[in-house]
Amino acid sequence: MNHETLALSLSQAAEQQQFAQAIEQVEDLRPIDIADVLALIDATLARQLLERLPNRSTIFSYLEADIQVAMAHEYPRAILAKIVGEMPADERTDLYKQLNQKQRDALLPALAQAKREDIRRLSAYEERTAGALMTSDYATLDAEMTVAEALAALRLEAPDAETIYHAYVIDDERKLLGVVSLRVLILAAPEQKIGKIMVSNIVSCDVNDDQEDVAKTVARYDLIALPITDAKGALVGIVTHDDAMDVASDEATDDFHKSGGVSTMVGKLKDVSIRVLYRKRVFWLVFLVFGNLLSGISIANFEDVIAANLVLVFFLPLLVDSGGNAGSQSATLMVRALATGDVVMRDWFSLLGREAMVALMLGATMAVAISIIGYIRGDAVVSLVLALSMVSVVMIGCVIGMSLPFVLNKLGFDPATASAPLITSVCDASGVLIYLFIASQFLPL
Amino acid sequence: MNHETLALSLSQAAEQQQFAQAIEQVEDLRPIDIADVLALIDATLARQLLERLPNRSTIFSYLEADIQVAMAHEYPRAILAKIVGEMPADERTDLYKQLNQKQRDALLPALAQAKREDIRRLSAYEERTAGALMTSDYATLDAEMTVAEALAALRLEAPDAETIYHAYVIDDERKLLGVVSLRVLILAAPEQKIGKIMVSNIVSCDVNDDQEDVAKTVARYDLIALPITDAKGALVGIVTHDDAMDVASDEATDDFHKSGGVSTMVGKLKDVSIRVLYRKRVFWLVFLVFGNLLSGISIANFEDVIAANLVLVFFLPLLVDSGGNAGSQSATLMVRALATGDVVMRDWFSLLGREAMVALMLGATMAVAISIIGYIRGDAVVSLVLALSMVSVVMIGCVIGMSLPFVLNKLGFDPATASAPLITSVCDASGVLIYLFIASQFLPL
Repeated sequence: MNHETLALSLSQAAEQQQFAQAIEQVEDLRPIDIADVLALIDATLARQLLERLPNRSTIFSYLEADIQVAMAHEYPRAILAKIVGEMPADERTDLYKQLNQKQRDALLPALAQAKREDIRRLSAYEERTAGALMTSDYATLDAEMTVAEALAALRLEAPDAETIYHAYVIDDERKLLGVVSLRVLILAAPEQKIGKIMVSNIVSCDVNDDQEDVAKTVARYDLIALPITDAKGALVGIVTHDDAMDVASDEATDDFHKSGGVSTMVGKLKDVSIRVLYRKRVFWLVFLVFGNLLSGISIANFEDVIAANLVLVFFLPLLVDSGGNAGSQSATLMVRALATGDVVMRDWFSLLGREAMVALMLGATMAVAISIIGYIRGDAVVSLVLALSMVSVVMIGCVIGMSLPFVLNKLGFDPATASAPLITSVCDASGVLIYLFIASQFLPL
Repeated sequence: MNHETLALSLSQAAEQQQFAQAIEQVEDLRPIDIADVLALIDATLARQLLERLPNRSTIFSYLEADIQVAMAHEYPRAILAKIVGEMPADERTDLYKQLNQKQRDALLPALAQAKREDIRRLSAYEERTAGALMTSDYATLDAEMTVAEALAALRLEAPDAETIYHAYVIDDERKLLGVVSLRVLILAAPEQKIGKIMVSNIVSCDVNDDQEDVAKTVARYDLIALPITDAKGALVGIVTHDDAMDVASDEATDDFHKSGGVSTMVGKLKDVSIRVLYRKRVFWLVFLVFGNLLSGISIANFEDVIAANLVLVFFLPLLVDSGGNAGSQSATLMVRALATGDVVMRDWFSLLGREAMVALMLGATMAVAISIIGYIRGDAVVSLVLALSMVSVVMIGCVIGMSLPFVLNKLGFDPATASAPLITSVCDASGVLIYLFIASQFLPL
């Protein structure tokens, strides 16, 4: 049964207050699937169903933020506190940050002291840092414990910890000493000391590190969880592989949007309001209108040669677009290679020579195509002007397209920022200039 | 010490045949870091060092494919067979697929029978499917086992399995019955039957599923490993979270490249040859040269009005680019939303209305900007022509930009294919037509 059909059938049962029957229909589903179904039905019925589901906190964690906030507003404080209390610490903090002051004041007193402090601590970290991403539900061990004691400790921690597959060995000041995997634990002799079997060359991130670096570290070292430490080296949280994967996907979306000239946008495209869409797009479009004036100014300087050779206008969009297209390709390759770490700043110079070579080959191929059309439409001189212009335009476009991401990076901007439209505009302006300059050298005024 | 410095010091030690001293310098590093260091030093020295490192198979797995192949060619058959024999099954198969027939014939007889069959089986799956991504190193259990027996079985499987945190319960025909996590196992009573505690609503993928769907499933359900079954429901492999994360990243790179008009490219940008770069880029560039002729043809039809009003040429690049830029934004948003699954085909119609609204607002804002410039440079009529053209061009651009990815998808192409340059060309041609048509209605011939 697909989610829509299930939602319909669930609504009908819930409307008749047959909650037990409704719950039976979904209880075998995965929490995220139940959350998807609940999102499709009436808010009041969804709330009534959710509070009766056995793993309601997990399901609640998978609901979209706006639904969570709406539900949080409607639930009696006691039920809300129970649901929120059972949520994973990172999800709970994300919800808390979405609530307004009144809602926060209503929720906090209903939570246990430890959870209140945990929320306050986790919500203090800046957005997009390791701190804002991490959870405090991790398992810790003492280096002096035996393997048997450690396993007993993990059994106690298992219901609350996000993962017990990696347990972190800390000292009295919570300084991170090592990590032990459950795989190693169940293979070790029960009387063995944890300090002897732990791995002490630990991969970790600082709590203020960028979330993108956290995701890259998890991916590079194939980790299930990455420990996060503060300036003193004390363990303050872990980031699990699934959250790292979500960050990597969000960052890729972000880069994709930026390269097309859309500012960072949170949420699914389907759900974003018209106002937000307008705001995220208008800046670059208006900026580029003014950027494009440069092309106009180039044209104004060559009005004589255009007036005398109107055939030039026929090829104008074609020539300037070719430079922009080739430049966009270069920028596309470079932006993504910088984002994935395949290319770093110091590679710029060596890549430049290779790019010039590729551009020469591409430009020559395109010059052949356009000079044939030029000969048909104009004459041999026009054909020559077009071929020369094409090679120059494509080479300039590629070099700009390859270098701009590095320049943006150097200036502290994200290299993905508006790379495609920005490069199109810059290449267009230089393309117009080159084309008309070459034309003015060969064609009569 | 950074990798370059370490590589230098390692080379010096290895050159003097002081391998023990060299190994001491790296043995505390993670395998992937050792692989990075080895990639920086002389091939012969790297090979001599690698065969002496304790976890050489893991390190070897992290080397780039071309280095692996080069090393495979040089190692004596006995050493190669040992290294390859200890590699994870999926990595081993990937290497095997890179070798030429002579190398394969040399390697296969040196491997144990079971590993030979495993390689043959895994390498038979088509590229980019679940089968080509999965590994056969997983742990299985019998439903009739007790928890104590299962733990004992997992201890035996631990050295070979990629993960023992999820173990798969199968029957005599390898049909997948359920999954048990190690977390549940260590919490359960030792005499409990596996059949009673296993989860039987399993998330799995078919061996022929696209690797992109596999990665999405792992991400959606926050899995450590995803079981892969054949047509009969028999377990044939698992895909681990780290491989799924790599696929998600590769697919994002692919979409990013395609949207910029670069064909699917394997390998790091730094390492790709000039010939490959040329080949991956030339198709779309030449295609778009001919696509852009459409703009030229529009211009040819309006040569009279251009000749009489040369000021039109001044604004030509600006106006047509604006349509292209707005269209690229729409396409960018849509391509990524289709790729992440945030938007599906049936959302097209409802999104179209919203997009038209956003485009109207964007177009109106840009029209204000351009009409002021038009008034300064031309007169009130030119200003009006520009404003009207801008609104139309932006609206057409956005609607095309939003719809093209859906059309490509419907036609069986990847919606990311060349979205930016393709949309620029289509929008340019329609922009030129709209602009000159409006101009011909208001301006003297």
